[in-house]
Amino acid sequence: SSNIRLAVIPGDGIGTEVVAEGLKVLNAAGVKSETTEYDLGAKRYHATGQTLPDEVLDELRGYDAILLGAVGDPSVPPGVLERDLLLRLRFELDHYVNLRPVKLFPGVTTPLGQARPEDIDMIVVREGTEGPYAGAGGVMRRGTPHEIATQESLNTAYGVERVVRYAFEKALSRPRRKLTLVHKTNVLTYAGDLWARTVDRLSLEFPEVETDYCHVDAASMFFITQPQRFDVIVTDNLFGDILTDIGAAVAGGIGLAASGNVNPARTAPSMFEPVHGSAPDIAGQGKADPTATILSVAMLLDHLGHAEASARVEQAVADDLIERQSAWAARSTREIGDDIAARVAG
Amino acid sequence: SSNIRLAVIPGDGIGTEVVAEGLKVLNAAGVKSETTEYDLGAKRYHATGQTLPDEVLDELRGYDAILLGAVGDPSVPPGVLERDLLLRLRFELDHYVNLRPVKLFPGVTTPLGQARPEDIDMIVVREGTEGPYAGAGGVMRRGTPHEIATQESLNTAYGVERVVRYAFEKALSRPRRKLTLVHKTNVLTYAGDLWARTVDRLSLEFPEVETDYCHVDAASMFFITQPQRFDVIVTDNLFGDILTDIGAAVAGGIGLAASGNVNPARTAPSMFEPVHGSAPDIAGQGKADPTATILSVAMLLDHLGHAEASARVEQAVADDLIERQSAWAARSTREIGDDIAARVAG
Ligand SMILES: CC(C)[C@H](C(=O)O)[C@@H](O)C(=O)O
Ligand SMILES: CC(C)[C@H](C(=O)O)[C@@H](O)C(=O)O
Repeated sequence: SSNIRLAVIPGDGIGTEVVAEGLKVLNAAGVKSETTEYDLGAKRYHATGQTLPDEVLDELRGYDAILLGAVGDPSVPPGVLERDLLLRLRFELDHYVNLRPVKLFPGVTTPLGQARPEDIDMIVVREGTEGPYAGAGGVMRRGTPHEIATQESLNTAYGVERVVRYAFEKALSRPRRKLTLVHKTNVLTYAGDLWARTVDRLSLEFPEVETDYCHVDAASMFFITQPQRFDVIVTDNLFGDILTDIGAAVAGGIGLAASGNVNPARTAPSMFEPVHGSAPDIAGQGKADPTATILSVAMLLDHLGHAEASARVEQAVADDLIERQSAWAARSTREIGDDIAARVAG
Repeated sequence: SSNIRLAVIPGDGIGTEVVAEGLKVLNAAGVKSETTEYDLGAKRYHATGQTLPDEVLDELRGYDAILLGAVGDPSVPPGVLERDLLLRLRFELDHYVNLRPVKLFPGVTTPLGQARPEDIDMIVVREGTEGPYAGAGGVMRRGTPHEIATQESLNTAYGVERVVRYAFEKALSRPRRKLTLVHKTNVLTYAGDLWARTVDRLSLEFPEVETDYCHVDAASMFFITQPQRFDVIVTDNLFGDILTDIGAAVAGGIGLAASGNVNPARTAPSMFEPVHGSAPDIAGQGKADPTATILSVAMLLDHLGHAEASARVEQAVADDLIERQSAWAARSTREIGDDIAARVAG
């Protein structure tokens, strides 16, 4: 097959460091790629005031996929790069599935004293383009004692159905075939009702998939006390944001959590990124764990049809994680990348 | 002082069982009380169709405090008792502070392998009367492919300021004097901005209190990986709902999590309840842990000015929890209540 045409957005802080290792492993996997780097992030913002110029966005549409490190820096007003760059990419490229595996690899230390790898193996299908992330809302009488600030969650049948359908298909492809809707239907009645009805309706098309429902507060607890309850979870943008950070915590930390912002309809490139941020406090020191980015590269390969290469990368990470248990010293970002790349190359 | 006039709503499922033990301990504490029971919950709903009649609500306003067990039963359409009884009480009685301690007592098993009691000792001040719980929102073209469902978070300067002020006062009264705002200001910009500005403004009145900010996704992770970060947390109704269930999980489970729905202005009685639900699956079997209700009684005593009796109840629970470690057999709901009551009576 032809080369993967990949846009790379290293971003800020540790983003550059982890992306370099991700690309190293991609090369080692033997899948040919052509990469083009985009300097979006804090530097570009300070130099030009731009976050995501329209021409750049249009160019990005032309790639097969995007690999992103992390964006954000204390020198930029909070929220600007998150909203005008990261969320804008997710929305404009219609990344309606935010795919986040929560998986405890053997050998990895979890804060949960009793959890074993077979207890934590799920995947969160987080909606990526609507809900409370729509940006809807407003403020009146700002700064006065009579101020009112609103924030609106927008949920459409179109938007909910497509992500729920994707989640059913994902559940069908896994051995347990279980799909859990997480919401707060007893309080958020309008949105919750649309989500619950959509799951009920589609369940008729997927009789092999067992469905379940869990309120977000209970689900957050069960991630800690009974993670084995879950196989595939489908949920809205905000609940998914919270749940996947809990998931990262119980599955060994944010250094291992991968994600894909997926456009399953393939009307635009999907974007793969570690769940962690730019961690300015440890940037430039070679301390960042590139594993989350490397696992995101595995997801990217899988998305582009390179299932075998993807599995090889994931296996190399799994092997590396087992070795880490008995390692006598911490390795640098680059050393971890080198070791995993060597395993992938075989 | 005169008798406490207490309204008791045992509710459904294990609610009745745990409330009986709570009242037993209240009596043992030597604070005189007159209790009146209200049969609100599933039974009344089935018998009369009523959840919270206006006359009952008016009567409830006359008490010094309310003790609630749990409401909810599978025979009632989901959400009805939660919204029309529980949330209605919180809103009508203006329980703008939902106070939820997250504290790991010595001797208690936590799913976190490494956590020690000194690591988990915080209190969540959850807003109780507005935000995403306001019930605002709507649906259009329901059941069609063009359906849109909205859910609106309503935040007022009045509502945010009073709960943030309470949280500052609470932080001032604790040794660490640290207050953390939890929100999602980078995405929920209108509401987040009001919350953040309110904390900034009030911090000038409380220079002794150190303030901090944490996004809800990161905070959810830190509850698991670095709970010692937190002392007092202030947050909105929905984030507080999620965080306090995570808190219950890490501090030994929902059987120990107490809460107070507090009206600090005392324009109506406050209501104390365990965080857990009615657990119909174990109802009537004497299996429920009444400790959360007993700790809620301690909060009730403290709220009504009986600080010494409150401390005695909490100490009795702490002592009982240490003994549980080495107990050879599980005790019934009643036995736990008896044992704690005996310790309180001295
Ligand atoms: C940076 C932020 C906008 C983002 C989100 O909330 O989605 C992040 O937390 C994530 O989970 O990718
Ligand atoms: C039952 C439900 C409406 C309630 C809430 O969401 O507040 C419960 O989860 C709680 O935390 O007390």
